[in-house]
Amino acid sequence: MRLLTLRTDNGTGTATTVAVRQDGSTLTEIEGFSDVGALLQDPEWLAKAEAANGATHALDGADLAAVVPFPGKIICVGHNYRNHIKEMGREIPDYPTLFAKYQESLIGPNDDLALPQESDTVDWEAELAVVIGKQGRRITEADAADHIAGYAVLNDVSMRDYQFRTVQWLQGKTWEKSTPFGPALVTGDEFSPGPLMTSAVDGEIQQQTPTADLVFTPEFLVSYISTIITLNPGDVIATGTPGGVGHAQDPKRYLQEGQVLVTTIEGLGQLTNRVVKEA
Amino acid sequence: MRLLTLRTDNGTGTATTVAVRQDGSTLTEIEGFSDVGALLQDPEWLAKAEAANGATHALDGADLAAVVPFPGKIICVGHNYRNHIKEMGREIPDYPTLFAKYQESLIGPNDDLALPQESDTVDWEAELAVVIGKQGRRITEADAADHIAGYAVLNDVSMRDYQFRTVQWLQGKTWEKSTPFGPALVTGDEFSPGPLMTSAVDGEIQQQTPTADLVFTPEFLVSYISTIITLNPGDVIATGTPGGVGHAQDPKRYLQEGQVLVTTIEGLGQLTNRVVKEA
Repeated sequence: MRLLTLRTDNGTGTATTVAVRQDGSTLTEIEGFSDVGALLQDPEWLAKAEAANGATHALDGADLAAVVPFPGKIICVGHNYRNHIKEMGREIPDYPTLFAKYQESLIGPNDDLALPQESDTVDWEAELAVVIGKQGRRITEADAADHIAGYAVLNDVSMRDYQFRTVQWLQGKTWEKSTPFGPALVTGDEFSPGPLMTSAVDGEIQQQTPTADLVFTPEFLVSYISTIITLNPGDVIATGTPGGVGHAQDPKRYLQEGQVLVTTIEGLGQLTNRVVKEA
Repeated sequence: MRLLTLRTDNGTGTATTVAVRQDGSTLTEIEGFSDVGALLQDPEWLAKAEAANGATHALDGADLAAVVPFPGKIICVGHNYRNHIKEMGREIPDYPTLFAKYQESLIGPNDDLALPQESDTVDWEAELAVVIGKQGRRITEADAADHIAGYAVLNDVSMRDYQFRTVQWLQGKTWEKSTPFGPALVTGDEFSPGPLMTSAVDGEIQQQTPTADLVFTPEFLVSYISTIITLNPGDVIATGTPGGVGHAQDPKRYLQEGQVLVTTIEGLGQLTNRVVKEA
C-alpha cells in the first residue's frame, strides 16, 4: 500500500492536509487523519487505510506535503554505504553514526528546496528513509520488521560549510525547508531494501547505488536506536547516503540556484525539487 | 515570574499535567494549558500566566514534570564554557558546536534518572537552558531577548561510551529518561546568566562555575541557530556545561546506582535526581 499526505485548502484558503491512499493514479482520503504521521498514531492504521473510501483526487497534479510532515524524531545515519565510506576515506564502522535533523527541514516531494543566502556549499545525499509504525524500546532485530510501517525517499541535503564548522554535523544538516521527503510511504510488505537509488542534478546522475549496499540494515538500526530511546509511530530513520556526493567530487560540486534535484528509489518513487535562493 | 508543569491525576488514575504559576510556596493553575510548553504556544502566554487564578497547590511535595515536557526541538551546545574547553584540551571555538537531544530523554526535577543496563559511563553536565517564547527566523542578537521566554536548569547527562563510539555524539546524549529539566521556567525579566551553577553527587560538588563564563551567550545562540532554522515557542537551547565532568577527572568518575545527582543554578532552582538502574 502507498500512503501520501495531500495538501488541500477546503476552500478556506488555509493550508490543510489529509492522509490519502494511492491506488494507481487515484488518491483516496483517509478521513479523520490530517497526515500520514497522524494516521500512524492509530494502532489500527493499516486496516483503516485499507478500508478508507473518502473523497478521491487525481495523483496527477496533486500538491503533496512531506509524507510525514511532523515526525517526533528524525534520526539520520552517517557512514552507512560501503562506497560512500570509501570515497570519504573511512573504515567500515563497528557502530552506526547517528545525528539528528529537525522537522522544520522537511519539504514535500515537489516543493522548492531553499538555498540559503548563508551557504554556497549545498550538497545532495539521497537516502532510504524508514518510518516507524509501532512504539517500542529495546526492539530485537527479529522483531524490528513489525515496528516498521514502511519506506520512503529522503534527500539529506547538507550545507557542507556549516557541517564542518565544528565537530558536530547538526548545523549543516537541518536548514529550513531543505530536506525533500516522500512521495509516499510504501508499506513493508511491498518494499525491501535492494532496489536502485539515484540522485541527479539537471538530469545528470550523481549517485546511483542499490539500497542493498547498506552496512547497517533497517532492522539493525531499529534495534540499535531503540536500545537508547523509545521509537514512536511516525519517527523517521534516514539510513545514510551512498557515494557520489558533490563534496567528494574533484572538483567539488554544489547545488546552484535554478537547478533541479531529482532523487529516486525504484519502487518507492521520486522527489523533484527545484533549488530556489531565499529572498 | 516562575512557571512550572505540575502532575495531577484528577482522580482518574491517568497521569495528567497542568501549567502553574509559582508565588512563594503556592502553585496556581493556569487553566486550559496542559504544561508550560502548551502555554508558550499562546502569544498571550505572559498575560494569561500573570492573570491566572485557578486551583492552588502547595509547592512542598508537588509532583513536577519536566518544565517543558515536549519541546519541538532541544538544541544542545558543546564547548561553551572556557574552563570545560580547557579541561577537554581544546581551543576557544569560532562557532558554537550544536547537537540534538530528543524529548523522550527529559524527566522532571525530582524524578528518578534511568541508569541503563547498557552503559556504565554515565556522566553529569549541568547546564543553563534557554526556553523560546516567540517564533522567529534570522533573529538578530539585538532582538533575541524578545524571543526568550526564560531560563531553567538542565543536566545533559551523557553516556560517554556511546557518545564516543562514533564521531557524532547524539547516541550518548539522548538516552530515555536521563535528562532532568526544570524545576521552573524563570522569565527573562527575573534572571540573566551570571549566577553560580553547581552539580553535586551525593553532596560532593563536581562542577561549580558562574553562568557568566559562557563563550556564546543565549542571545548569540538564538541568533545563530535561527539563521539555520525557525525557533518556535517551547524550543529549548541547552547552553553547554562547565568544567568538572566525571569523564575529565583522574581517575574518571561516573554515576552509580543509588547516588543522588543535584544540579543547581542560583535564582533558578534545583534538580534532585536519584540514579536508578533500569530493570
